[in-house]
Amino acid sequence: MQKYVTRKVREMVVEDAVEGFYLLKSPTPRTTQNGKNYLTFRLADTSGEIEGIYWDYEGDLHETCVGKPVKVRGTISEYNGKKQFNVIQIRAAKEDDPLDMNALIPTAPIDPKETYSQLVSLLDTIQDPEYKKLCVEMLARNQEFICCIPAAKSVHHSFRYGLLMHTYFMMCHADYMSRFYPFVNRDLLLAGTFCHDLAKSKEYELSSFGLVTDYTVSGHLLGHLYMGALEVAKVSSELGISEEKSMLLQHMLLSHHGKPEYGAAVAPQTAEAVLLSMLDDLDAKMELIRETLEGQQPGMTDSVWALGNRLYQHD
Amino acid sequence: MQKYVTRKVREMVVEDAVEGFYLLKSPTPRTTQNGKNYLTFRLADTSGEIEGIYWDYEGDLHETCVGKPVKVRGTISEYNGKKQFNVIQIRAAKEDDPLDMNALIPTAPIDPKETYSQLVSLLDTIQDPEYKKLCVEMLARNQEFICCIPAAKSVHHSFRYGLLMHTYFMMCHADYMSRFYPFVNRDLLLAGTFCHDLAKSKEYELSSFGLVTDYTVSGHLLGHLYMGALEVAKVSSELGISEEKSMLLQHMLLSHHGKPEYGAAVAPQTAEAVLLSMLDDLDAKMELIRETLEGQQPGMTDSVWALGNRLYQHD
Amino acid sequence: MQKYVTRKVREMVVEDAVEGFYLLKSPTPRTTQNGKNYLTFRLADTSGEIEGIYWDYEGDLHETCVGKPVKVRGTISEYNGKKQFNVIQIRAAKEDDPLDMNALIPTAPIDPKETYSQLVSLLDTIQDPEYKKLCVEMLARNQEFICCIPAAKSVHHSFRYGLLMHTYFMMCHADYMSRFYPFVNRDLLLAGTFCHDLAKSKEYELSSFGLVTDYTVSGHLLGHLYMGALEVAKVSSELGISEEKSMLLQHMLLSHHGKPEYGAAVAPQTAEAVLLSMLDDLDAKMELIRETLEGQQPGMTDSVWALGNRLYQHD
Amino acid sequence: MQKYVTRKVREMVVEDAVEGFYLLKSPTPRTTQNGKNYLTFRLADTSGEIEGIYWDYEGDLHETCVGKPVKVRGTISEYNGKKQFNVIQIRAAKEDDPLDMNALIPTAPIDPKETYSQLVSLLDTIQDPEYKKLCVEMLARNQEFICCIPAAKSVHHSFRYGLLMHTYFMMCHADYMSRFYPFVNRDLLLAGTFCHDLAKSKEYELSSFGLVTDYTVSGHLLGHLYMGALEVAKVSSELGISEEKSMLLQHMLLSHHGKPEYGAAVAPQTAEAVLLSMLDDLDAKMELIRETLEGQQPGMTDSVWALGNRLYQHD
Amino acid sequence: MQKYVTRKVREMVVEDAVEGFYLLKSPTPRTTQNGKNYLTFRLADTSGEIEGIYWDYEGDLHETCVGKPVKVRGTISEYNGKKQFNVIQIRAAKEDDPLDMNALIPTAPIDPKETYSQLVSLLDTIQDPEYKKLCVEMLARNQEFICCIPAAKSVHHSFRYGLLMHTYFMMCHADYMSRFYPFVNRDLLLAGTFCHDLAKSKEYELSSFGLVTDYTVSGHLLGHLYMGALEVAKVSSELGISEEKSMLLQHMLLSHHGKPEYGAAVAPQTAEAVLLSMLDDLDAKMELIRETLEGQQPGMTDSVWALGNRLYQHD
Amino acid sequence: MQKYVTRKVREMVVEDAVEGFYLLKSPTPRTTQNGKNYLTFRLADTSGEIEGIYWDYEGDLHETCVGKPVKVRGTISEYNGKKQFNVIQIRAAKEDDPLDMNALIPTAPIDPKETYSQLVSLLDTIQDPEYKKLCVEMLARNQEFICCIPAAKSVHHSFRYGLLMHTYFMMCHADYMSRFYPFVNRDLLLAGTFCHDLAKSKEYELSSFGLVTDYTVSGHLLGHLYMGALEVAKVSSELGISEEKSMLLQHMLLSHHGKPEYGAAVAPQTAEAVLLSMLDDLDAKMELIRETLEGQQPGMTDSVWALGNRLYQHD
Repeated sequence: MQKYVTRKVREMVVEDAVEGFYLLKSPTPRTTQNGKNYLTFRLADTSGEIEGIYWDYEGDLHETCVGKPVKVRGTISEYNGKKQFNVIQIRAAKEDDPLDMNALIPTAPIDPKETYSQLVSLLDTIQDPEYKKLCVEMLARNQEFICCIPAAKSVHHSFRYGLLMHTYFMMCHADYMSRFYPFVNRDLLLAGTFCHDLAKSKEYELSSFGLVTDYTVSGHLLGHLYMGALEVAKVSSELGISEEKSMLLQHMLLSHHGKPEYGAAVAPQTAEAVLLSMLDDLDAKMELIRETLEGQQPGMTDSVWALGNRLYQHD
Repeated sequence: MQKYVTRKVREMVVEDAVEGFYLLKSPTPRTTQNGKNYLTFRLADTSGEIEGIYWDYEGDLHETCVGKPVKVRGTISEYNGKKQFNVIQIRAAKEDDPLDMNALIPTAPIDPKETYSQLVSLLDTIQDPEYKKLCVEMLARNQEFICCIPAAKSVHHSFRYGLLMHTYFMMCHADYMSRFYPFVNRDLLLAGTFCHDLAKSKEYELSSFGLVTDYTVSGHLLGHLYMGALEVAKVSSELGISEEKSMLLQHMLLSHHGKPEYGAAVAPQTAEAVLLSMLDDLDAKMELIRETLEGQQPGMTDSVWALGNRLYQHD
Repeated sequence: MQKYVTRKVREMVVEDAVEGFYLLKSPTPRTTQNGKNYLTFRLADTSGEIEGIYWDYEGDLHETCVGKPVKVRGTISEYNGKKQFNVIQIRAAKEDDPLDMNALIPTAPIDPKETYSQLVSLLDTIQDPEYKKLCVEMLARNQEFICCIPAAKSVHHSFRYGLLMHTYFMMCHADYMSRFYPFVNRDLLLAGTFCHDLAKSKEYELSSFGLVTDYTVSGHLLGHLYMGALEVAKVSSELGISEEKSMLLQHMLLSHHGKPEYGAAVAPQTAEAVLLSMLDDLDAKMELIRETLEGQQPGMTDSVWALGNRLYQHD
Repeated sequence: MQKYVTRKVREMVVEDAVEGFYLLKSPTPRTTQNGKNYLTFRLADTSGEIEGIYWDYEGDLHETCVGKPVKVRGTISEYNGKKQFNVIQIRAAKEDDPLDMNALIPTAPIDPKETYSQLVSLLDTIQDPEYKKLCVEMLARNQEFICCIPAAKSVHHSFRYGLLMHTYFMMCHADYMSRFYPFVNRDLLLAGTFCHDLAKSKEYELSSFGLVTDYTVSGHLLGHLYMGALEVAKVSSELGISEEKSMLLQHMLLSHHGKPEYGAAVAPQTAEAVLLSMLDDLDAKMELIRETLEGQQPGMTDSVWALGNRLYQHD
Repeated sequence: MQKYVTRKVREMVVEDAVEGFYLLKSPTPRTTQNGKNYLTFRLADTSGEIEGIYWDYEGDLHETCVGKPVKVRGTISEYNGKKQFNVIQIRAAKEDDPLDMNALIPTAPIDPKETYSQLVSLLDTIQDPEYKKLCVEMLARNQEFICCIPAAKSVHHSFRYGLLMHTYFMMCHADYMSRFYPFVNRDLLLAGTFCHDLAKSKEYELSSFGLVTDYTVSGHLLGHLYMGALEVAKVSSELGISEEKSMLLQHMLLSHHGKPEYGAAVAPQTAEAVLLSMLDDLDAKMELIRETLEGQQPGMTDSVWALGNRLYQHD
Repeated sequence: MQKYVTRKVREMVVEDAVEGFYLLKSPTPRTTQNGKNYLTFRLADTSGEIEGIYWDYEGDLHETCVGKPVKVRGTISEYNGKKQFNVIQIRAAKEDDPLDMNALIPTAPIDPKETYSQLVSLLDTIQDPEYKKLCVEMLARNQEFICCIPAAKSVHHSFRYGLLMHTYFMMCHADYMSRFYPFVNRDLLLAGTFCHDLAKSKEYELSSFGLVTDYTVSGHLLGHLYMGALEVAKVSSELGISEEKSMLLQHMLLSHHGKPEYGAAVAPQTAEAVLLSMLDDLDAKMELIRETLEGQQPGMTDSVWALGNRLYQHD
């Protein structure tokens, strides 16, 4: 009797006999010219996706399990030069299955509770009472999002807790840099860094697993820079924050993409706004490099679109 | 006895004996190396400016009359290759002097009351009650500005009533174009056109004569596109305008510069926003051409910075 | 017995039984590895195209009917994930078939005769006898083209009567704008607008249905801006038009793409040339938006190449 | 008694006593505040220009000698930090004065008669009778210009015989290159190279000495690329040159600036047009370098605008 | 019995029976779903490539003959709309087969020995003993490469002896141009031209046939401009060449791509460096045109990526 | 008797009587038209420069004191609208004068000895013996420069110890960032950061006070990126550093300007090279902001060329 093994999608090779849990994507019931029923679909985990086929399908998995975990058993073959999973058993995952969702859904390489707690601690170091009050309120209003959503649709940080990871890393950098460059107002820098991407929660459509599936209409027509600045303006007004401080924060949000051609609504014109835009770019590029090099053999990678170049993985 | 004539500044020639009213700019009391007192200044009307000098000055005109009309008498001479007004009498203009401020201060070539009235009539043709309600409120809040301020610091429409002229012309174009292109929502187009530059009132420092002397800090850090959209968002919220309609208007204000490199916060993505950005560019360029060609002899003009070229004045 | 319905190509769904008239494109007789003959082709109407297949083909339709209407009957199935028309009867359309060519060939949404008549009326309002004489002669020389050809190979106005529609709309705009901007010479503007795209007749290869299939060699090497200016120069010389007026018209034709990077041979340097280039851009963009939004559901469209963005279709 | 020396303008130093011939530029009679008459002007030779002053002037040199050679005697002093020629004698140059116009007016470093003769010989090597016939006619029509005018207003080749030098050098290069790249049609290349800049005669206003003082209106509005192509089209038509050959030549003229952003009306799309545009750029840059380095000490030059860089003069 | 013919790959048509020698590329043994073995591969000569299939394959050609010549016999059929070579006999080419490698591998259209000899003769005309000494040493160190490698991975000169052809042509141009522009130092120009691309030998991975298969890691991270300059610096130092001359040569190598956006490490700042960069561009473009037009029917070609345009092949 | 005060140049106002030490720049002896001798010059300290004049000058200060400190006494007046220092006593500064060179020469706001010591400590934390060995050798060879020279000619860090300050700050950032991004090789990053600007010592001409007066010829023709990489290549070779590590360091030096249009010889293609280029930009921009805002009143600054914008100084 054949021995089934568990395999990450990326590691499956032809002739493997595999059993395990995967996300079910795009299940489509079909019929051959001979009238034979079958189901095509894709199976996914965090390592990638594989085409699947299941013969003599008569069920309703394609209605009940789209985007949900299933348990499958079958063998890997090759079809039209690509690997294919020939499934012989398939069912929905059950409550008590030994299932690790983190292996199925891309997730930030951080401990989200610990990171959130450290972020809150950093906010607590803000001295200026107005900036602190505003951050506390913005945190309260956006808590459910900042604790979970990605920071991008693709390219980098496009996984669960991506926004938390990106925001926290940048706040650490802001804290560090304000020591080197004392003419920078640390409170303003920390507050602006904390708020800079919060409106991404209004910019993304999220799947049931918390991944970005598309931009919202207001994401297209208004953008998270404007929507974030608008919320800061509104909350500042409600809390009685001074006009000057509110303006400085709005300016940081409007300008944090650095240049109009990168999407900034205005060019950064304060020390804090310039620094924020550079730290945003730095953390985005470094995370992009991390994702590109992870698991990459030594040598040149393929061209990385967002860098405009290949990368070299050295020892 | 010498006969004094009245002259526009641009038409003064050496040896003219001139008497008339001009704006007094930059009056500076000075002393020669021999201890002789004198006053230097510039005299201006809508046709230009000329350097002036007044000997044996002991008064306080430089404190009381800066930027105000004065009556002067004197002769035109040449100094260091440039024309100079040698003033022999100078005094502040009085209430009952026969003085035409329109000849001294650049003013739009329109009848402001008539134009304002026609603009209001056009607003009244908006059918959609929400767009109409919003425009009425925006008009009420900005009435004192839209009736008088320039639409620019320099380049074009940089005169009194410039914003009124620019807005009214564009609303006429919007009205006309919506007949040719019926897929355009006329009400939305008119409302967006009316609102698009209102926040320039927050972007400019104005002189006592209503000309732009500089940008405000919020003009630099936030810009009139954002401040206008913010006001639309706020007013819409107060009036209970639908989210969709408010978003469509905010989008038009944010995008009306057409491209990020021209200052748009987002690219125009609705038929009405694309059309608004083109009509804004068209009216600005045509006004710039009018100002460039006015009084210009046939032939090539100097290079016009905002066009990137010279213009040819033909018969 | 099966009931056949008529369907626009875009509305066909799998399992439809369809009968109707379509254009026959790219018919290619083929043979299976078993020696069985068949014909592959595409069937088109104004709504789109569908792949077709006809078994046991022995005829000569592929020689006589390329690009012509045929009558077909058959069923819609799916092949390799795309819809396919399995034809069981096919023949050339006959003279007396109830056939509406406008449903098969893309056509401007105007009444061409009426529009042409209004265009001629507008030309008749030109006061300057030299500009009028030139336009009358250009009309006479290009009449057969301006009455029918498209204004583009693709992107926008790429249908029958496209040039007529585009030219007429722009002449209306020219007429309107010359009232607002009185420093513009209305006669010159109307004449230049009328002539600006006439040389597209030399730039395009046309199919038998009047659609653009390709650019001519002179379209590539010389372009319609130059060829149009050349014809104006030649006709002006023959008619004794003054050098100055001829030059002003040639300049408008050479510069009507606005900027060198958009194909202008020189930058526009007269009020009329600047305005023409903006009206050309405006009408092209608005028509592109019309074509993009037509039949589009509310929501974001796909990215529109010529706009560099998506569009939002609102209610 | 003081000894007067002759000096090139660039070599004059303060306290020199100088006598010689120079061009008189911008003579302007003036009067001091004390009523004393004097004349200011500039004196020029090929090495540069110097400000001049002549006291107690009562004559009419400023009307009769503008831009003509005068004989002057005087001393060099310093005024406002710049050298000034204090003239004590000045008169118009006479017919029999020992005057070398080549020392006064910038002139190409070639023997114009010899160069012209070699250019004609090169034209004579064209084998194709149509291209040859066209070149002979173009030569006949433009002979007076090609023998004398500059090839530029400034930057490079902006001296007498500049067009002849530039055209001849490029024809030599065309001849040489057609041997290396046999797929290039030598006759077409030579003909296009000969014609490419001839319309500069219509693009420039020339001073009485044959230097470019400005662009003509048609130079601005039409440009020499278009005017040259137009003349080729017209002459080809009159001589019955084939449409294809005429088009190939027009294409070379329209495209010889290489790229739209450098002024090309269309991009070069034949082997000959691409090569012509590169040889034009090459000869222009090399002449610019020659003029920049001539008389330059070893070391870095100032920034050369048309190169976008400094140059290094080595030993 | 069927008659087999020899065919260049580009000239094969469906139903041909073909026998001949081709390079074997990408041979891959496969198995059908029924367990039948077969081999897929591509067959190549200088005219192009064709997909091939060989049934009932049991051998080891795919291990021993990759990238080597094989003798095949079979027929041309069509599969999925593309031509396919159905091979019925296939074997490795033998020593004594009548095989012309030049018909299989892209090779420069020059006589490499003769060209090399002329290149050496040109080097011998360098008068300056330091430049000559350096060239002799660089030749000695790079002889095996300059005699054979391509000058590019693709685009142009991507064939055997490409570097030799490109270098020799440019040295001829350098020799010619130094006569026209005597301010150019001929010795420096020839030396820099000879050395400019030698480090391409370090930039490319070469196949066993001497074609470029990829860039090396140092080709990516350092580039041939830097590696060439580094070798010149090192060799100059070893040979005691003066610092100034060594610097001038290093500068030419670092700058020979003309502009930073084309890969130059610094902008060319000597007459020789500017000229070298233009001759490099000129020879590259002309070779690209030669390769594009070769065998091309009259008419417009497809768009040529490296030119940014189509080309027109005239008679 | 008049009371003399000491004043920073920027704080001098008209009618001040001033005594103090300043640098003497551009002293030029002159003579009036009446034969009276005087000396013009500029006096400078770290706060700015002022024009100076000294009557009846007969000495040789202009030969012996150029660029050196002098002691002056006099009064501030206004000439042609600008402040002028009317000097009545002037002499060279003496050994025992109470003179603070740091008030006269721009100097980094760091303790150079302390900073150098910390930099050396950081180098000492490099673990990899090859990178450490190379850094030690590079430090030894460049010690005299890294301890004193500026990091720029102007714009930012253009003061004594500028290179030390910039290098040390960036090494601290490198140390910090390598903790956040563990896929970055800390040793390589620190080594590359230490070496990245060392070749600026070969790129600058330095004044006797250690300020940059100009670029060297090799600075222009080769640049510090290439010269630095060359030195790393040479030293690595001498020390037997592995080829891979040497290449990685050379790559970081060649690419540290980030993009070709900012002067990078190649684009950064390793994690360390990308990070280095971002930290270089970040520290340069932050120092530029520090210098711009220092002593600036709240409000908008003038446009800062290297930022492409104005800055806003808030409270």
